[in-house]
Amino acid sequence: MKESLTFPSQAETLVQAIVLAAGKSTRFAMGSSKLAFPLCGREMVLYPVSLLESLSLPTIIVTGYQKDIVTQLIQAAHPQSVVFVEQVEQRGTGHAVMCTQTEWHAEHLLIINGDMPLITSELIQQLINEHCKTQATVSFVTAACLEYPHGYGRVINNGQKIQIIEARDFTGTRQEGQCINAGVYLINREFLQDALTHLNLHENSQEWYITDLIDITSKAGKKVHTIETDFDTIRGINTISELATAEKIIRERIITHWMKKGVYFEQPETTIIEHDVIIGPATRIGAGVHITKGSRIGARCTIGNHSTIDASTLADQVTILPHCVIAQSEIHDHATIGPFAHIRNTHSIHERATIGNFVEISNSTVGAYTKAKHLSYIGNAIIGERVNIGAGTITCNYDGVRKHVTTIKDNVKVGSNNCLIAPVVLEQNSMTAAGSVITQNVPRDALAIARAHQVNKENYTKRFESTPSFVAAAVHEK
Amino acid sequence: MKESLTFPSQAETLVQAIVLAAGKSTRFAMGSSKLAFPLCGREMVLYPVSLLESLSLPTIIVTGYQKDIVTQLIQAAHPQSVVFVEQVEQRGTGHAVMCTQTEWHAEHLLIINGDMPLITSELIQQLINEHCKTQATVSFVTAACLEYPHGYGRVINNGQKIQIIEARDFTGTRQEGQCINAGVYLINREFLQDALTHLNLHENSQEWYITDLIDITSKAGKKVHTIETDFDTIRGINTISELATAEKIIRERIITHWMKKGVYFEQPETTIIEHDVIIGPATRIGAGVHITKGSRIGARCTIGNHSTIDASTLADQVTILPHCVIAQSEIHDHATIGPFAHIRNTHSIHERATIGNFVEISNSTVGAYTKAKHLSYIGNAIIGERVNIGAGTITCNYDGVRKHVTTIKDNVKVGSNNCLIAPVVLEQNSMTAAGSVITQNVPRDALAIARAHQVNKENYTKRFESTPSFVAAAVHEK
Amino acid sequence: MKESLTFPSQAETLVQAIVLAAGKSTRFAMGSSKLAFPLCGREMVLYPVSLLESLSLPTIIVTGYQKDIVTQLIQAAHPQSVVFVEQVEQRGTGHAVMCTQTEWHAEHLLIINGDMPLITSELIQQLINEHCKTQATVSFVTAACLEYPHGYGRVINNGQKIQIIEARDFTGTRQEGQCINAGVYLINREFLQDALTHLNLHENSQEWYITDLIDITSKAGKKVHTIETDFDTIRGINTISELATAEKIIRERIITHWMKKGVYFEQPETTIIEHDVIIGPATRIGAGVHITKGSRIGARCTIGNHSTIDASTLADQVTILPHCVIAQSEIHDHATIGPFAHIRNTHSIHERATIGNFVEISNSTVGAYTKAKHLSYIGNAIIGERVNIGAGTITCNYDGVRKHVTTIKDNVKVGSNNCLIAPVVLEQNSMTAAGSVITQNVPRDALAIARAHQVNKENYTKRFESTPSFVAAAVHEK
Repeated sequence: MKESLTFPSQAETLVQAIVLAAGKSTRFAMGSSKLAFPLCGREMVLYPVSLLESLSLPTIIVTGYQKDIVTQLIQAAHPQSVVFVEQVEQRGTGHAVMCTQTEWHAEHLLIINGDMPLITSELIQQLINEHCKTQATVSFVTAACLEYPHGYGRVINNGQKIQIIEARDFTGTRQEGQCINAGVYLINREFLQDALTHLNLHENSQEWYITDLIDITSKAGKKVHTIETDFDTIRGINTISELATAEKIIRERIITHWMKKGVYFEQPETTIIEHDVIIGPATRIGAGVHITKGSRIGARCTIGNHSTIDASTLADQVTILPHCVIAQSEIHDHATIGPFAHIRNTHSIHERATIGNFVEISNSTVGAYTKAKHLSYIGNAIIGERVNIGAGTITCNYDGVRKHVTTIKDNVKVGSNNCLIAPVVLEQNSMTAAGSVITQNVPRDALAIARAHQVNKENYTKRFESTPSFVAAAVHEK
Repeated sequence: MKESLTFPSQAETLVQAIVLAAGKSTRFAMGSSKLAFPLCGREMVLYPVSLLESLSLPTIIVTGYQKDIVTQLIQAAHPQSVVFVEQVEQRGTGHAVMCTQTEWHAEHLLIINGDMPLITSELIQQLINEHCKTQATVSFVTAACLEYPHGYGRVINNGQKIQIIEARDFTGTRQEGQCINAGVYLINREFLQDALTHLNLHENSQEWYITDLIDITSKAGKKVHTIETDFDTIRGINTISELATAEKIIRERIITHWMKKGVYFEQPETTIIEHDVIIGPATRIGAGVHITKGSRIGARCTIGNHSTIDASTLADQVTILPHCVIAQSEIHDHATIGPFAHIRNTHSIHERATIGNFVEISNSTVGAYTKAKHLSYIGNAIIGERVNIGAGTITCNYDGVRKHVTTIKDNVKVGSNNCLIAPVVLEQNSMTAAGSVITQNVPRDALAIARAHQVNKENYTKRFESTPSFVAAAVHEK
Repeated sequence: MKESLTFPSQAETLVQAIVLAAGKSTRFAMGSSKLAFPLCGREMVLYPVSLLESLSLPTIIVTGYQKDIVTQLIQAAHPQSVVFVEQVEQRGTGHAVMCTQTEWHAEHLLIINGDMPLITSELIQQLINEHCKTQATVSFVTAACLEYPHGYGRVINNGQKIQIIEARDFTGTRQEGQCINAGVYLINREFLQDALTHLNLHENSQEWYITDLIDITSKAGKKVHTIETDFDTIRGINTISELATAEKIIRERIITHWMKKGVYFEQPETTIIEHDVIIGPATRIGAGVHITKGSRIGARCTIGNHSTIDASTLADQVTILPHCVIAQSEIHDHATIGPFAHIRNTHSIHERATIGNFVEISNSTVGAYTKAKHLSYIGNAIIGERVNIGAGTITCNYDGVRKHVTTIKDNVKVGSNNCLIAPVVLEQNSMTAAGSVITQNVPRDALAIARAHQVNKENYTKRFESTPSFVAAAVHEK
């Protein structure tokens, strides 16, 4: 989802961003850093970083807790647009901002938390525009919160003075406390430089807080500007439950985006489309479908209910029937897959190929118009065009030590329930008889047979009926 | 879902309906006519048409954009109850009504859009009843819309005069604009005939609008009556997103209907039951189940989570375990299917049959008490009663050119991993040995064997251990 | 979910509970007793009984309709904490309470309906605490209901007198009727004993109602105390639709509970976790997953989307890939299962074993580091460590009469598409060739082969091309 913005060209010298990504995830019960936890396929801390990059704002990341993990994540995704500053001791948001001072160069500093993945570029742009237009010293974002705003500072504006009261110090009524501080600030650099020297150390926590800056600004007679947004835009994430809420909102945004592009969703609420996926117009996505890790889906495709497409590419007019798992694979135009097919690590299922139920394709190539419709395992195989793979066929690609290739050339007919013992080549236009174990290459136009003759033992089961214990013998008969 | 109505018997001469189905789907990004798009298994335009038919109202359909598709859809579903009028040029709703004049015969004309699938027969009945009772010249439906009512005309009633202001011309506050025009009118025919001659052509769009009729009526001193309903009843559909909202509401209505009839839904929100499906009482439907295309489900059935039943019939007390796909098939009393079974185009799975996991049944008949429990492909087979199909059995029904029939008579035991090469007959009470390829008919009471003798090569793997490269040889050993 | 309560130690002599579980489920269209219907794996009537047991309150159950089913359910789950009283004729709630008098011994009687599974122990504790503190004669629970409160008595408190007006007798406005009677009462025993003798028989229904007690208390000048709670806490269940609503609320409570314990849910809304399930921290649960019947899931496990875990135990760091069904089984540390695997009645899949797609394991043991990755049926097998089961392997465990055991010792390599005809033993370190039918034991270190030699018939398909009818012959070739 590309952002389209109308931003002043001098953005880089005007505003510089500070992302606070140093805090411990104390309330995040998974036992890891929440900032490295993915939402819809993108790790939490990458949300603000991507957004700031899309706005061309130079960005300083303050790291601390699990510094290496957070740093590596950001560097892998955004190698050039950020600088990192370490906050060695965790001594509050004010202290985190102090740590960044050597990196400041722009006129204003945008301060944003690393755990607010719902913030939009529209909001940041509005904040910058209004901050400049109103010539405020400090601007910050507020939101009306109708649920009980656990843990959020309350914004009290008596007309003359704006104040932020920490959640634990707030004693007003529920209604008085509905306007909350989002924790997103835009501050004049020169003022900030001076104001940080006046921040008080809070005795109990031994920390410095950014929120105190608002009071300092007001007392200095400087202009404080606020802009209000929806609470859903500024939700912070401290718990798994809050993460689930945010992930749901992101999912709805992604699906709404694709609906506008002409994609139909049978049941949007049960569908998961990750961030970096692309879907072509007039494609229909069934209930419970998951499309993840940068998959590319073409136009006029159909993806049946409860199928998963992971890190894969589908060309146009591909049909995926229900209950398929497609991973790290590429499917060409007009192919039909499923139901209950599992395709993985497969470069290409070529155009108009048909892969049916209970079929696994792994590390293989399947030619155009080729069919493998029932109960087969195709691994490390190179299969040509217009081949028919009989039901129950197995490529015996693994000798217990190494994997070997099965090569099936154009127009071959593999009989049902064959074992193809790799390495082996079935030449063009050849056939194999049902139930064969193919150990040698099959020449062009040849029929290969490797199965025993049938013997009918008459009146066999009659004996069995009178002597039940006879059954065991029967199954061992040769 | 049958409608039960208390409607005046002279409905046909009293009211005649006009369905506006000519407009382009300009905002519907799928690139096709929204009117032909199915919601819960019924194409959008069929909703008002079915509803009017259930009320015995003669109906005129105004077609235009994608006329042939829309016409064919309606004719296929409602061959006798409608007449079609083409609006060759798209010149507004007023113009669409003008096109229908030659077909008028009833006392009042009901005008309704083709893209409003949520309208209920209760609403139409109420509209007609109140229109007659109040002796209004024009009656129309309004709704209070708490969300922002994009694109809907606003209804302004100052006590003396009722007016509809087009969305783009509305300048009032959000609250003043909450009462919207649903676009459903009932108008006295004689008045309409005259009023249409007074409609003004709108300069910008070069179109005539029905909404102007309200002003004309008021100015003529005639009575305008409005009835208010829920916004959810009159939602129009212009975008894919609006379609998703409507489809969700329809799904909830359908499921609520079946709950009242005694059907339990494990997770109604993830379940999809299409319009023309029937479900018996005390049946339990699992989460994520889809029942589509006129399927008939009996009483006291259980359908496990994430199973799909498409165009199929289940008798009573059938158990479908999770993750099954049943299509175009018929399952008799007390049969058990799944999990992970795929049954298609199969006339009958008879009573108390058991079909197990990773089994595909296609174009076959399965007798009573017969079992096929594991990893089998049964295609074009006629299977008798009390047959046991061993795991991994495959009917080799396709010779590369034609399909052939496998016949398995009563009480046969097919060994595991058999290939049954059709055409072939296994006579009553016969058996086949595991691992056999059955190419010839098996007589009654006979045991058929077609497999090789086992040879054990002693101390084989020891050699292999000292010479790893030996493995490849081993798998080719004969 | 254990309750943690700060309850007075003399609870047992202070309060005694009466659960009304005698009524007919007339509006419950399933045709059975709603009280025996499970919500999230626990039958409805067990909710209040469990809650009262967790509060150490002695409990009297009034049974009537489907008395045996209800009694057996409760006795199976709570064998020691309850006594049963039968209400032979259904003559109202007042009459039900009368039936219990011989069992009274505590100071106060708590009366609660059997169809209110959402009540929390916090609410009951608050009711008892406030009842004692205010020295009320009667206390009861009310709730504000913003939806239209079908069937609930309305509580009217004019400051001087509190009254309950039956739903059918209520004539006030919607707003006046928003405070409803939950049907949960705590009443002084001595007063109750006396008051029951003053209850009037209602002429129309020939029943006595508890609700009349409030009026009697007020008239007697005794103190009536009410406590208000959320409507969601006291929803009663009469219809399938109300059951669905309650089940959704219970599901959300259970999932919120596990989120707090460090469990991540990809899509909480589509996930079903039953009541008595346990899940370890840092485990990730995919969309559409069902975990039922007392399953135990370890820490740091991953359960892929749309998998079902039923009555099973997973140790730590187990990976279940999407679309699996695991039932009555036990999976050890670091094992990997799926996708599309079906494991049932299997004591143990040992650590780091791998079970792959379209594989069924039934009544078996699978050793550590063993792999069965493709299209296999393993039934009644005892499999050692580091075994490799080739694709398409089938244990032929059923001779049509009995099941037999397949034993595969450590380090065995079973070739692809083998039939292992039980009873049979593959000794340590042995191998079998692909496509073999193993009927005899395989000695240690031996290679067993049981398959036919391959013959290539040259230029076979060329003939076939010129004579299409030749195909049928080809597939029967030997």
